[in-house]
Amino acid sequence: MDGKFMDGKFMDGKALAKQVRERTAAEVAEFTARTGRRPGLATVLVGDDPASAVYVASKRKQCVAAGMTDHHRLLPATASQDEVAEVLTELAADPEVSGILLQLPLPAGLDAGALVQLIPAAKDVDGLTTLSAGLLAQGRPGLRPCTPSGVIELLDAHDVPLEGANAVVIGRSELVGKPVAQLLLQRNATVTICHSRTRDLAEVCRRADVVVAAAGRAGLVQGDWVKEGAVVVDVGIHRTDAGLVGDVDTAAAAERAALITPVPGGVGPMTIAMLLHNTLVAARAQFDAQFDAQFDAQFDAGADAGTGAG
Amino acid sequence: MDGKFMDGKFMDGKALAKQVRERTAAEVAEFTARTGRRPGLATVLVGDDPASAVYVASKRKQCVAAGMTDHHRLLPATASQDEVAEVLTELAADPEVSGILLQLPLPAGLDAGALVQLIPAAKDVDGLTTLSAGLLAQGRPGLRPCTPSGVIELLDAHDVPLEGANAVVIGRSELVGKPVAQLLLQRNATVTICHSRTRDLAEVCRRADVVVAAAGRAGLVQGDWVKEGAVVVDVGIHRTDAGLVGDVDTAAAAERAALITPVPGGVGPMTIAMLLHNTLVAARAQFDAQFDAQFDAQFDAGADAGTGAG
Repeated sequence: MDGKFMDGKFMDGKALAKQVRERTAAEVAEFTARTGRRPGLATVLVGDDPASAVYVASKRKQCVAAGMTDHHRLLPATASQDEVAEVLTELAADPEVSGILLQLPLPAGLDAGALVQLIPAAKDVDGLTTLSAGLLAQGRPGLRPCTPSGVIELLDAHDVPLEGANAVVIGRSELVGKPVAQLLLQRNATVTICHSRTRDLAEVCRRADVVVAAAGRAGLVQGDWVKEGAVVVDVGIHRTDAGLVGDVDTAAAAERAALITPVPGGVGPMTIAMLLHNTLVAARAQFDAQFDAQFDAQFDAGADAGTGAG
Repeated sequence: MDGKFMDGKFMDGKALAKQVRERTAAEVAEFTARTGRRPGLATVLVGDDPASAVYVASKRKQCVAAGMTDHHRLLPATASQDEVAEVLTELAADPEVSGILLQLPLPAGLDAGALVQLIPAAKDVDGLTTLSAGLLAQGRPGLRPCTPSGVIELLDAHDVPLEGANAVVIGRSELVGKPVAQLLLQRNATVTICHSRTRDLAEVCRRADVVVAAAGRAGLVQGDWVKEGAVVVDVGIHRTDAGLVGDVDTAAAAERAALITPVPGGVGPMTIAMLLHNTLVAARAQFDAQFDAQFDAQFDAGADAGTGAG
C-alpha cells in the first residue's frame, strides 16, 4: 500500500474517486478520438425532491467534466407511469445515449420496479435491472451496480487480499448487500451474508477479515465486533445530531481495524465515479456491437460477391 | 417431524419426490379441468450420450404420468448451433409448450450458454437463463432451478428451521451452489458460501446448523466437520469402486447429524419432481397472462364502446 489514498488507516474515497474520474476522462478522450463519438449519460428525475435534485446535478456536472454528453429529463411529480415509461423507451432507442439513470426514489404512485426494467441491460449504468442482476449472478459481462463496484475499487486500491478471505456482508439489499456479496465471491472470498435475522451478528463479524456494513442502521457495528487487523468498509450514511455517521462506530472500530472507510468521504464519493466508469463501458460495448454488426454485414456482402450467391 | 419421509435420521428423497409428483399430478388434473389445457414439457436432446438419453426418458415418462403432454425433440450429435437454435425458437413460440428443457451437456462445438438464453424466462423450467437468475437474485417471481428447489423442499418437509440458521453452502456453481444460497437467504438463513479457495473449510462447516454440500468432490465433507445436531444435505453423486457416493462421508456424518440425505435416494429424485412442478407453475402463469391480456382487450373494447372514443 502506497498510502496514496490513505490518511493514517482511513481509506480516502474522495481521493480515489478523483483518480477514477480522471482516469475515466482520459479514456473518454481516447474513445472519442478513436470513434468520433462521445459517451452520453441520460439522467431522469421525476419530481422535486431536493436531495435527489442535488444528487442528479452532481452526476450531470461530473459527467460533462469527464467529456461525456448530458441528456437530462425532468418530469413533474405528477407524471404518470406511462409518461415516465415513454421517456425511458425513447432514451433506450436513442443512439446518443450510452447510459440511462432513473433517479430513485420516485414519487409515490409510480412503480419504480416496472420502470427500471424498461432500461435495456446495455444502458443500465446503475446495474439495477433484473437482467443486470442475472448477468452478475452468473458472472457474465455486464454493468454492475455503482456502490458495490466502488467498494471493490476501494479494496483493490488498498491491495486488500480478497482471495480466500472471510468476508462478511451486513445487509442484503438489491442495491448494495446482495451485489457486493456476488462481487466478493467472484474475487474468491468466502462470503457470509448477514441481516436482521442473523443470530449473534457480533460473533460472525469478529471472524471477518473484511467487513462490508450496508445495513442502513447508524452505528450498528461496534468497535469490539472488529477483529484486530480487519478491513472495514462502511456503506451507511445517516444524518444525526452528531453529524453524518455510518453503520459503524468508526472511532472505536478504527482502534482495531487495519483499514477503515471514513463517513463521509469513504464509499460515498465512489458511487458517482463508478457511474461515469459504467457509462464509458456501456458506450464502448455499444460501439463494438455496432462495429461487429457492420463488419458482419460487409463480410457477408463480400462473401456473397465472391461466391456469386444471392 | 412425522417421520413420513425419514428412515431413522435419513431424509427419504425418493418418498418425498413421489409425494411431490402425486401432488403435481392432482394439480395438473385440476388445471386441465378448469382451463381445458394440459401443461406441456418440451425436452430437447442433442446427440446420443447414453446417460443423457436415460435421464431425458425418465423426465418424459414422469411428465406423461403427471398428466402433461410430451414434446420431445431429438437432434443428431452433428446438429449445428443454428439448427438447435431454430428448434428452441420454435418451441418458445409454441403455445402447447409450457416448459422447455435443453438437456446438458451438449456435444462439443455447441455453445450451450448462448442456446440456453433462447429459452424465454416464462418457459425456463430448469431456471438456467440469465433472466431467471436475475429474478431469483432480486427475489421476484420466476422459475427456480430444480435441484436447489428440491433441497429446500426436502428441508421444509422435515420442518428444518431456516430462519436465523447458520447455513453453509459448499460449492458455487450456477446450477446448484449459487441458487441454493439465494433460496436459503430468502428464507432468512445467515448464509456462508464456500468453495475451493475457502480457508479451513472444516472449521466453517463445524459452525453450520445446515450444510448443503454441492462441491462435486466425493467424500469431501468428513464426519467430524459436522456439528452435533446439524442437518446435512448432500447434492453430490459420484460413481466409485465402492458404489455411488456423495460429497459427504455419509456414515461418519450420520453419527453427528440430526438429519442427513442418503446418496442415492436423497436430493437426486427431487430434481425431476421439481421439474414437473415448475412445468405446472409455468403453464399456470402463461394461462393467467393470456387471460389477463384477453380481459384487458375486452375491457378496453367495452370502454371504447361506452365512451364512443376511437
